[in-house]
Amino acid sequence: MSVQFGQITIIGAGLIGSSVARAIQRCAATATLVLCDKDKDVLAEAKALRLADIYQIDLVKAVTNSDLVILAVPVGAMAAIGEMMAPALKTGAIVTDVGSVKASVFKALKPFMPEGVHLIPGHPVAGTEQSGPSAGFASLFEDRWCILTPPEDCDKVALKALTALWEKFGSKIEIMEAEHHDLVLAITSHVPHLIAYNIVGTASDLEEVTSSEVIKYSAGGFRDFTRIAASDPTMWRDVFLNNKDAVLEMLGRFSEDLTALQRAIRWEDGDALYKLFTRTREIRRKIIDAGQDDAKADFGRPHKD
Amino acid sequence: MSVQFGQITIIGAGLIGSSVARAIQRCAATATLVLCDKDKDVLAEAKALRLADIYQIDLVKAVTNSDLVILAVPVGAMAAIGEMMAPALKTGAIVTDVGSVKASVFKALKPFMPEGVHLIPGHPVAGTEQSGPSAGFASLFEDRWCILTPPEDCDKVALKALTALWEKFGSKIEIMEAEHHDLVLAITSHVPHLIAYNIVGTASDLEEVTSSEVIKYSAGGFRDFTRIAASDPTMWRDVFLNNKDAVLEMLGRFSEDLTALQRAIRWEDGDALYKLFTRTREIRRKIIDAGQDDAKADFGRPHKD
Repeated sequence: MSVQFGQITIIGAGLIGSSVARAIQRCAATATLVLCDKDKDVLAEAKALRLADIYQIDLVKAVTNSDLVILAVPVGAMAAIGEMMAPALKTGAIVTDVGSVKASVFKALKPFMPEGVHLIPGHPVAGTEQSGPSAGFASLFEDRWCILTPPEDCDKVALKALTALWEKFGSKIEIMEAEHHDLVLAITSHVPHLIAYNIVGTASDLEEVTSSEVIKYSAGGFRDFTRIAASDPTMWRDVFLNNKDAVLEMLGRFSEDLTALQRAIRWEDGDALYKLFTRTREIRRKIIDAGQDDAKADFGRPHKD
Repeated sequence: MSVQFGQITIIGAGLIGSSVARAIQRCAATATLVLCDKDKDVLAEAKALRLADIYQIDLVKAVTNSDLVILAVPVGAMAAIGEMMAPALKTGAIVTDVGSVKASVFKALKPFMPEGVHLIPGHPVAGTEQSGPSAGFASLFEDRWCILTPPEDCDKVALKALTALWEKFGSKIEIMEAEHHDLVLAITSHVPHLIAYNIVGTASDLEEVTSSEVIKYSAGGFRDFTRIAASDPTMWRDVFLNNKDAVLEMLGRFSEDLTALQRAIRWEDGDALYKLFTRTREIRRKIIDAGQDDAKADFGRPHKD
């Protein structure tokens, strides 16, 4: 397939931004790829990795003449960036993002978007716990879902072009309303991260159990939680502040269910425990069948035979 | 090193029992290895895998003449097995187990142990989410901790022999009081499993979000929890019923901390969130430094480049 865009600009050279850059280079989707980051060290690292054609610290210069601008920054930074870059956006340009919250991102950017610029929020459901330009890789989005939340009056040609780009990265595309996205991700991503952060915090605050004991015996299950609790703090702070209602709703349900389990333990209701523990096994199987996780035991962690 | 035991009997041919069998065979620790399971299909599977020298469905026959009996059954089954096998135990034999709870196991077995039999509860902190004889492997215990909780008056020679066996499996040994073990494991293993089971249950009960959406977008974090929520239901029911006090204590702390986080989200206290999310990153690093998890991003899940 030939070059699809004249110029693409990526704002933010972290894990996701740098992975998008690599994916764009791999499928040669643009004549010119511009990478912009406000941190000159991050930009220098990206340059050393040859992730783009042009490296630009200046936001306005970075987006000038671009046909597609991809915001790969924490969702709390969207409004300020939107306001600053807006005057330099080319008519007909597509502006998208990769944030984990969608309604607030649209709300933050929309007021600044000039007439003729197509704002289509997006969210590739993929990532690792690592950060920075070196952590990214081109295949991060392969076989993962990318959710786009275009407004109702979205330009069909622009939507088609953005869809085609994510498909080139190997993603499967889902079109969804922003509010529904935020509810779905609250339970599949945001609350899981919150409870992972929370248990790691609880464990490190104990007096009766030392932190060295927590680390030594973490293979009993705890270590699984520490991986996502090592994710980028700024990104995740912004997710919770920007998806407050859906997170509080899902968290309320989680806590309610946990209280019921707590009661089952207190009253030694083994049947209730057994019933839940049997039901949850089935979900794991379906996730593996759907190709969303590996079937290997223990996440395929290395063992010697 | 030469054969250490004349005869070893393993009761229970599941993930852990079958891994112990393989580890014993690998280091040739016994002249005769007897594998016992009450389920004839499981025993037949173990036989097809050549996991032992003798396969025995009869518990009394299985332990007769054994120098070491290893109970690899759900902790709720210990008392009944202890009572049934006790008359057949050889004087001088060591009885141990691999259960995830230690105080209740000692309490369940001790009353039945004949004079001259050495009861030394144990817990290898290792496992996967899979079950049955085929799921086991000899290296499961390598570089993992095995906690032994001998009573104060424990025979030193017996303790030394059991320690040496686990060291042959590649484990590091820790001697601990049973009550302290149960508190440490409540936070590093039992509560993590409980909240994993719980969130998988919560997610599958939603009306606004379909179960197919939960599965599709599980790569956002949720899928990590489904692995341990796929662990053996009987084993885990018994863990919670037999470590009730410590689990309820740790669960209380977890819920308290989660309520504080919920409040921080409601009141948009970004600093409190950021502070916790930064602190938890450090714990992950320490677990990796201690060799208790792999440093690879995303648990080293397969990616194409």
